[in-house]
Amino acid sequence: MTTPSSPPSSWVEGAAGSGYDADHLPYGVFAGPGESPRVGVRIGNHVLDLTPVAAADMLDTHHLFDEPSLNELLGAGRAVWQSTRTWITGLVTDETERDLVEPHLLPLAEVTMLMPFEVGDYVDFYASLDHATNVGRLFRPDAEALLPNWRWLPVGYHGRGGTVVPSGTDVVRPCGQRKAPTEDAPTYGPSRRLDIEAELGFVVGAGSHLGEPVSTSAFADHVFGVVGLNDWSARDIQAWEYVPLGPFLGKSFATSISVWVTPLDALAATWTDLPGQEPAPLDYLSVAEPAGLAIDLEVELAGEVVSRPPYASMYWSPHQMLAHLTANGASIRPGDLFASGTISGPEREQRGSFLELSWGGKEPFTVAGVERTFLDDGDTVVLRYSAPGTGGGRIAIGEVSGTILPAQGLD
Amino acid sequence: MTTPSSPPSSWVEGAAGSGYDADHLPYGVFAGPGESPRVGVRIGNHVLDLTPVAAADMLDTHHLFDEPSLNELLGAGRAVWQSTRTWITGLVTDETERDLVEPHLLPLAEVTMLMPFEVGDYVDFYASLDHATNVGRLFRPDAEALLPNWRWLPVGYHGRGGTVVPSGTDVVRPCGQRKAPTEDAPTYGPSRRLDIEAELGFVVGAGSHLGEPVSTSAFADHVFGVVGLNDWSARDIQAWEYVPLGPFLGKSFATSISVWVTPLDALAATWTDLPGQEPAPLDYLSVAEPAGLAIDLEVELAGEVVSRPPYASMYWSPHQMLAHLTANGASIRPGDLFASGTISGPEREQRGSFLELSWGGKEPFTVAGVERTFLDDGDTVVLRYSAPGTGGGRIAIGEVSGTILPAQGLD
Repeated sequence: MTTPSSPPSSWVEGAAGSGYDADHLPYGVFAGPGESPRVGVRIGNHVLDLTPVAAADMLDTHHLFDEPSLNELLGAGRAVWQSTRTWITGLVTDETERDLVEPHLLPLAEVTMLMPFEVGDYVDFYASLDHATNVGRLFRPDAEALLPNWRWLPVGYHGRGGTVVPSGTDVVRPCGQRKAPTEDAPTYGPSRRLDIEAELGFVVGAGSHLGEPVSTSAFADHVFGVVGLNDWSARDIQAWEYVPLGPFLGKSFATSISVWVTPLDALAATWTDLPGQEPAPLDYLSVAEPAGLAIDLEVELAGEVVSRPPYASMYWSPHQMLAHLTANGASIRPGDLFASGTISGPEREQRGSFLELSWGGKEPFTVAGVERTFLDDGDTVVLRYSAPGTGGGRIAIGEVSGTILPAQGLD
Repeated sequence: MTTPSSPPSSWVEGAAGSGYDADHLPYGVFAGPGESPRVGVRIGNHVLDLTPVAAADMLDTHHLFDEPSLNELLGAGRAVWQSTRTWITGLVTDETERDLVEPHLLPLAEVTMLMPFEVGDYVDFYASLDHATNVGRLFRPDAEALLPNWRWLPVGYHGRGGTVVPSGTDVVRPCGQRKAPTEDAPTYGPSRRLDIEAELGFVVGAGSHLGEPVSTSAFADHVFGVVGLNDWSARDIQAWEYVPLGPFLGKSFATSISVWVTPLDALAATWTDLPGQEPAPLDYLSVAEPAGLAIDLEVELAGEVVSRPPYASMYWSPHQMLAHLTANGASIRPGDLFASGTISGPEREQRGSFLELSWGGKEPFTVAGVERTFLDDGDTVVLRYSAPGTGGGRIAIGEVSGTILPAQGLD
């Protein structure tokens, strides 16, 4: 179904049907060999180098693109995001722009994609009812799975912004303290229960002032777009350290995000109703519009899809996450990142972590004929995301991949 | 007792005996009316404007000072920190420098002190045995006060770097969800149990690479100095939200730091033995040298000193905090900040939070003849820190103050 605002397909060869047609146009930062990093937008299998085209078009905002990160564009605000998208849409759909644009379409294979933005504060939520229930059962088998606050507020915590890395970065198996319940004392060594968390990340564009909460209705004024996100997790380190102040070293060694940031405007056909909230949220968390996202995920391990988590099953909306995050007056800045928490649906094959897929390691699952629980050295995990685009097809939200390297620095 | 490396007293009037003599020399960022922020160093009741003096002296590193934050100096590394300190010591102790320096000594009353550095990741530890024991008793009265991991690792969590504010910034009472154990459901509104946490902050200078732990012995290569730190805490919001992922909105509304950063070199006479660790720390947490700090605190509420926490009572050393923080390969960057957690000694009058001083509100304490528990609107809290200097007297580590304003944005 084509929405009224859907652009025509691009004249760029290979764009139609690729998931990166004119209805998507995600942003990233790239560089060719020996070049300075700068901002580009993806169309098909090319990156459009925005800086020279903006200069040729004498665009007021051309300085936003000759930057090593998206942060200047993020901070420019929604009106600039929209005018920029309109301009780029014209470039890639209007045949008369071809002579201007074509020299600046660079094959993806000839450039390196870099970290798309400088991360300020990184907050990770816990917004999936199925994930929270599963983890509660596994971590606290003798208690209620869902803690009393869970249905009242989107539970979240701060992660480490400085260790967010772009897709493709290898992940060294972390060391840390681990203590199995059967052991008397902890030991220090490589994690034995290294895991993924398949999540969606929300990239803050326009900031706010300290002391001023951001309402759920102001979501699109502040959030620029979304990234794929893998919150790598060392479950043994986490289980030992996390009381009473929450996850720390079990998570802070690496968080991978996609190199492409999909702007919210590309998700106009993706919004859907939340599955339902009971009890009704407090006023500051109420949402009027459809606040769920019909984004489908694939979790691939060693070349095989092992899970298909549905984002539409998430209990808390991103509008509610942002309103909660700022309800105490905490300010946000361009480049802040908040993530959904693990996306797990109600079915086993919809679980977004290996902790859940293997039920704490007790129920191995089979990949390429081999029984698997947690991550082995050499494993590659790829998360893929797709959503209905405004053009009637589907858009491919930036995939995020990483390969596990053996622990380092040991005797 | 004067150590061999102690500098003579400064020729600057008022420096001797002020806590800001030539054996201290903390750094900050300042601006006069209409001026650009830049780096200065405090001597007595003056700030020395380093930029013009460095230019006149043709210092290689003069560009580090004409900056709106200390981050460039922080990232320059220990050799530069030491050569800079030697140079400044010469300026303020050698009478022959007087003609050069005096025009650039600005009375503190004529400048505004600003945020001294851009905070990257902020980690808050929980390193006081007495504080952790007190809080455990108050928050989990039916369980062991100290959780099983506490004596094995310095428990910590990530806070919000973007809401760290300089001393003197007013703190708006935060709103949030609170639910007393006697209530059926939470309500949203202003915190009724607003508190302080008197802490010491450690400012990261030289960074590290992802995947490479920083050993306890490399502490002084990476940590530039210390700040006073008040980790404002809304206890009712915290108590409801903190399971299972730790404190979030109960802390993220504001963290105040001193405007002056005391370099580690000024603390050479301050190191003392830790009170003792049992069990012995795992190898990666072992420390050889005296790793405690003989820093004394005063907590002032409404003009009256209500507590005198001794930093020397802290269980975990800052070397251990940094080694633990990076043990999983997490990298650090210039401007990262980690804090000790609340500093509480074993005696009631040494407790570093009102939660502990009033024993959860049940045992009010008297200030200026009035019974007090948590913070009222209009309250001003000042934290003061002092330590043995290398000159035989005491140095006054940057004080940190804040005044509570009423909650905003309510109907």
